[in-house]
Amino acid sequence: MTSPFDVTPDELRRRTSLKWRTYEPDVLPAFVAEMDVRPLEAVVDAVHRAMTTGDTGYEAEPTSPQGTAYAEAFADFAARRQGWDVPVERTRLVPDVMLGAVEVLRLVTGPGDGVVISPPVYPPFRAFVEHAGRRVVTAPLTPAGRLDLDALDRAFAGARAYLLCHPHNPTGTLHTADELRALGELAAHHGVRVVADEIHAPLVVGDEPFVPTTTVIPDAIALHSASKAFHLAGLKAAIAVPGPAARDLERLPEIVRHGVSHVASIAHQAAYRAGDAWLDDVRAGIRANGDRTAAVLAERLPEARWDRPAATYFAWLDLRATPAVVASGADPARLLLARGRLAVNPGPTFGEAGDGHVRLNLATAPSILDDALGRLVATLTR
Amino acid sequence: MTSPFDVTPDELRRRTSLKWRTYEPDVLPAFVAEMDVRPLEAVVDAVHRAMTTGDTGYEAEPTSPQGTAYAEAFADFAARRQGWDVPVERTRLVPDVMLGAVEVLRLVTGPGDGVVISPPVYPPFRAFVEHAGRRVVTAPLTPAGRLDLDALDRAFAGARAYLLCHPHNPTGTLHTADELRALGELAAHHGVRVVADEIHAPLVVGDEPFVPTTTVIPDAIALHSASKAFHLAGLKAAIAVPGPAARDLERLPEIVRHGVSHVASIAHQAAYRAGDAWLDDVRAGIRANGDRTAAVLAERLPEARWDRPAATYFAWLDLRATPAVVASGADPARLLLARGRLAVNPGPTFGEAGDGHVRLNLATAPSILDDALGRLVATLTR
Repeated sequence: MTSPFDVTPDELRRRTSLKWRTYEPDVLPAFVAEMDVRPLEAVVDAVHRAMTTGDTGYEAEPTSPQGTAYAEAFADFAARRQGWDVPVERTRLVPDVMLGAVEVLRLVTGPGDGVVISPPVYPPFRAFVEHAGRRVVTAPLTPAGRLDLDALDRAFAGARAYLLCHPHNPTGTLHTADELRALGELAAHHGVRVVADEIHAPLVVGDEPFVPTTTVIPDAIALHSASKAFHLAGLKAAIAVPGPAARDLERLPEIVRHGVSHVASIAHQAAYRAGDAWLDDVRAGIRANGDRTAAVLAERLPEARWDRPAATYFAWLDLRATPAVVASGADPARLLLARGRLAVNPGPTFGEAGDGHVRLNLATAPSILDDALGRLVATLTR
Repeated sequence: MTSPFDVTPDELRRRTSLKWRTYEPDVLPAFVAEMDVRPLEAVVDAVHRAMTTGDTGYEAEPTSPQGTAYAEAFADFAARRQGWDVPVERTRLVPDVMLGAVEVLRLVTGPGDGVVISPPVYPPFRAFVEHAGRRVVTAPLTPAGRLDLDALDRAFAGARAYLLCHPHNPTGTLHTADELRALGELAAHHGVRVVADEIHAPLVVGDEPFVPTTTVIPDAIALHSASKAFHLAGLKAAIAVPGPAARDLERLPEIVRHGVSHVASIAHQAAYRAGDAWLDDVRAGIRANGDRTAAVLAERLPEARWDRPAATYFAWLDLRATPAVVASGADPARLLLARGRLAVNPGPTFGEAGDGHVRLNLATAPSILDDALGRLVATLTR
């Protein structure tokens, strides 16, 4: 069996995407959420069929049988993989997860209302909430990367919505059913609505299960997409899934669907329908790369602290105690780029709690990961 | 030479897009802006190359050489086809034309400000402006389908922006340089900013040239995309082009670019780079279909009134005087669907000025157009 991660640097450098065209050729890119994978053949075939037959128009209306094809493919996937019963008829397609989250926030909050986020968190959370004319309120995760109920209690007092990241990017935390239950009670107490970005949900890499937010918090609304787990960031489409008590999506303006890419929808459907084996290979590869990373760090950079992720393909590394950071006081991402020619996501872009951290992308070939870890160790030990 | 319109109903009915999956199989769809064309091979190849190599990540940053690839391909196309000097460095990518128009309107207006549109016009103009929290003010076109400067003068008194449609959808009007100049003076007088949706610009089908708005109105901002002219509605990307005096795009938040599909960008670049001959064949086919339509109407439904479009692949038909409409007083699109099993866009969806009109899509095989015209004539003469 060939791993999806059986790719070479030469092949990857021919890609024209953000990961491979931002830096000079001597820089090894291990930033941004793109995977260094061979594509899933079923997706390649489905897109090629759409392109050759000119099936490149608009996504069909939800009222036509074709209009629920994305939702049905996702629901089957969610039932199969997560034991989740998705209410197809009540879902809505949106252009992508972040634009969808903004549209949902517009349904459940008003201009100027507070929206809570939990840093360190995916940087666009702050940017999109602010761009939507809402006020960002922060309730940082605990140092262990868990939801901090006390901080949330304080933040919820001045807010109307919580933008949950589940699994949490960059820490890879999977919130437990108990945590989600406590979150839901707190939110209900404060009249705060929970909107969950669940784009990384298919990428469970530990032993804990993914618990869909809406199965625990009935009036939550979740956003899903095949774009992250199947390396389709460049083909945008997503789906909003309401909990059993959430009626808000009925008020979503029809025009929101206008932004959905029909070809992306076709690609995502193929991934959800035929991607299980490929996805499991990807998850196994990420897990193996995590083992590799843990071993290298333990042996050669013991000052690095890392809690292995339960999901996502990120390593959120606390590098504050490493020799080079202690000696220089510099941001480790800056050191790694300048001295090691390794590009990672700088921790501070995820919020204050990210100081001294970096986000390293584990979704690559083992040999490329070894190169990255070599650069990381060499830079930070001296 | 094979025409791009050499397609069969059987092939088309295998498509899964809005045009082909909204109605029962006995309905002939001639609504919505999808073309019944064979795809441009260069686009099919470029997308297939991206898919097979996993070049499906994020669009590169504008600061990288790759980040201006879309803008450069568009600028070369615009220079070659329209003699237009596009300022590549000052352009910005946006998710699609309508989301881009909304983002530009947010830069040049505040919440609750008036935004003028000229019905009959593309229905999402109203919906997106309202969804953006702006107030729609109407200044209808003249009965001849031209800009009505008196109506604009009145409307501009209570507004901050004008959403221009150029070429105008559904009438196919190309605004002349003189009209644009007068519009620009009026807008400057009232402190109104002009935002131009120019998505149909490559589809000039008459003898008049397309005059880019920003070459006449220096502080205007135009939106372009390959999606309409190259039948790529399902692969979304677009570009905002500022006039020489428009500085607003410098304030466009970086996250807006987040919504741009990298694979769509690759497809559009291929279209702009290698699509001239295909596009000219498409334009010739639309022109020929227009001749066919004019001949059939003149001979068999002389009560229909139609000003041939200067651009777009739409026929905006005034059917108010046709026998069936006179006799029934019904909306002609409803009659055509119910009796003729022909789906066209109902005129009233384009605004009040659309009563008694329909928008018929001419971008199809001649034999399919004949079928559509046969249904139209049979329905409206009885």
